[in-house]
Amino acid sequence: MKWEGEEAEITAPWSVFKYDGQQLGASEEEIACEYPLTLKVDGEELATIVCTPSDLEDMVIGFLASEGVIRSAAQVESLAFDKERGFAAVKLRNKHELSEAMVSKRIIGSCCGMSRQFYFHNDARTAKTILTSLQISVNQCFALMRELQQQSDDFRRTGGVHNAALCTVDELIVSRTDIGRHNALDKIYGHCLRQRLSLRDKLLAFSGRVSSEVALKAAKIGVGLLLSKSAPTDLALRLAHDLGITIVGFIRGSQLNVYTHPKRITEWTDGTITTL
Amino acid sequence: MKWEGEEAEITAPWSVFKYDGQQLGASEEEIACEYPLTLKVDGEELATIVCTPSDLEDMVIGFLASEGVIRSAAQVESLAFDKERGFAAVKLRNKHELSEAMVSKRIIGSCCGMSRQFYFHNDARTAKTILTSLQISVNQCFALMRELQQQSDDFRRTGGVHNAALCTVDELIVSRTDIGRHNALDKIYGHCLRQRLSLRDKLLAFSGRVSSEVALKAAKIGVGLLLSKSAPTDLALRLAHDLGITIVGFIRGSQLNVYTHPKRITEWTDGTITTL
Repeated sequence: MKWEGEEAEITAPWSVFKYDGQQLGASEEEIACEYPLTLKVDGEELATIVCTPSDLEDMVIGFLASEGVIRSAAQVESLAFDKERGFAAVKLRNKHELSEAMVSKRIIGSCCGMSRQFYFHNDARTAKTILTSLQISVNQCFALMRELQQQSDDFRRTGGVHNAALCTVDELIVSRTDIGRHNALDKIYGHCLRQRLSLRDKLLAFSGRVSSEVALKAAKIGVGLLLSKSAPTDLALRLAHDLGITIVGFIRGSQLNVYTHPKRITEWTDGTITTL
Repeated sequence: MKWEGEEAEITAPWSVFKYDGQQLGASEEEIACEYPLTLKVDGEELATIVCTPSDLEDMVIGFLASEGVIRSAAQVESLAFDKERGFAAVKLRNKHELSEAMVSKRIIGSCCGMSRQFYFHNDARTAKTILTSLQISVNQCFALMRELQQQSDDFRRTGGVHNAALCTVDELIVSRTDIGRHNALDKIYGHCLRQRLSLRDKLLAFSGRVSSEVALKAAKIGVGLLLSKSAPTDLALRLAHDLGITIVGFIRGSQLNVYTHPKRITEWTDGTITTL
């Protein structure tokens, strides 16, 4: 992500292989940027908010008010950014008000935010680089996503839930539903651990957006292939690239995009198999 | 939410006023349940995970592995639930492994999870009960959601971002975009605080699902009316009911559902205004 003074691009181009219903071809897609901003209040790290890098002043003030740290913008004496490095430093006028709020803050953490500590330490410990030689065809991708969709029919009428499934290239093995994207994946992960499933020949099919956390979760579970109905973010794709995970997104109807490690995706045309 | 032994309902009925393109009528909708489960590890509270109440054993094991607390299911000596009260108690075989992981855990918190402390203390302090007498017609609801959709056209090609706008009943005043639902709303909140906007005659239009956190955020910002393209959860609706917030959801095409405090929604038919 590049900063021009105070402004950052909030979308970025990414080279993909796009299947248009006929064949896989190189293409360029615009994807949403995902930006981790670490917020320090009076020198103490409060939270890291993973966000779209726009209107950051508004977001910081809104976050502090929402968390009960401030009640009005006037309580903020100064707000300074080091946007390239991803830091915001807040000085409050009344330091006494903070201490109490900070205590509960550290416990609740920030929803949809993670600390850099998480990114750099905890994940390095638990996210594995994936080396599977598994391959799947575009038609198998479509079939698995259709099956995931069908299995979630009971839930479709309620709206707003996410589905995740552990699959072989041919079928869904176990699917889990949750209102939280992470929870649906954690339910799959827990099932794998409890059943001691081998993941070498498995992949994940997922209904939700592929954020950095989703890509990391795939690496932690230990699968090298993630299919999604939705879009990925740039940070998810950079992580997936580094961790050896193939991300196939926007699987809708007879179209899909292969974003990373396309070697695992094959195409059958006229009886011959082509590997990217 | 009712537990029958180990099993809970994962959806619940809710009485709504449904606009079917012609008129508003009483109806019943099935909505997704949102369940806070507080996880204790060796007696210490680790996180509260807000989730769909199914496959909770898998979720707890997956969450612990994902956070680096365990590497295999065998490291869990016992897992006991008090499902009605919303607690899971884990005992680990090797207590030394936990302490280090716990430290980073408390800082990262759980994404899409909040501690009960947040629910009961911090929110009671910051979420206000809304008493506005603002009213809006179903046609105005449709017009605002159309405008929100149009303003987000630049982003639509990237997929997977959320839009929030502060509105009068007639127009969008300011709209904000983010990959995180909370961030989009925090950006609106910060704008309101920095501009010292009066919120008495304002409402929120939102592209995302209405979880408990979104309903609480509306109360914190201080608006009594929330329009959404997506579905609400049962916990969001119970909070909205208690906090005096009107939730209008599933606003798609010429249909919508009024879930709570319908008195703020009016219908024009043949030149006369009907209030629910």
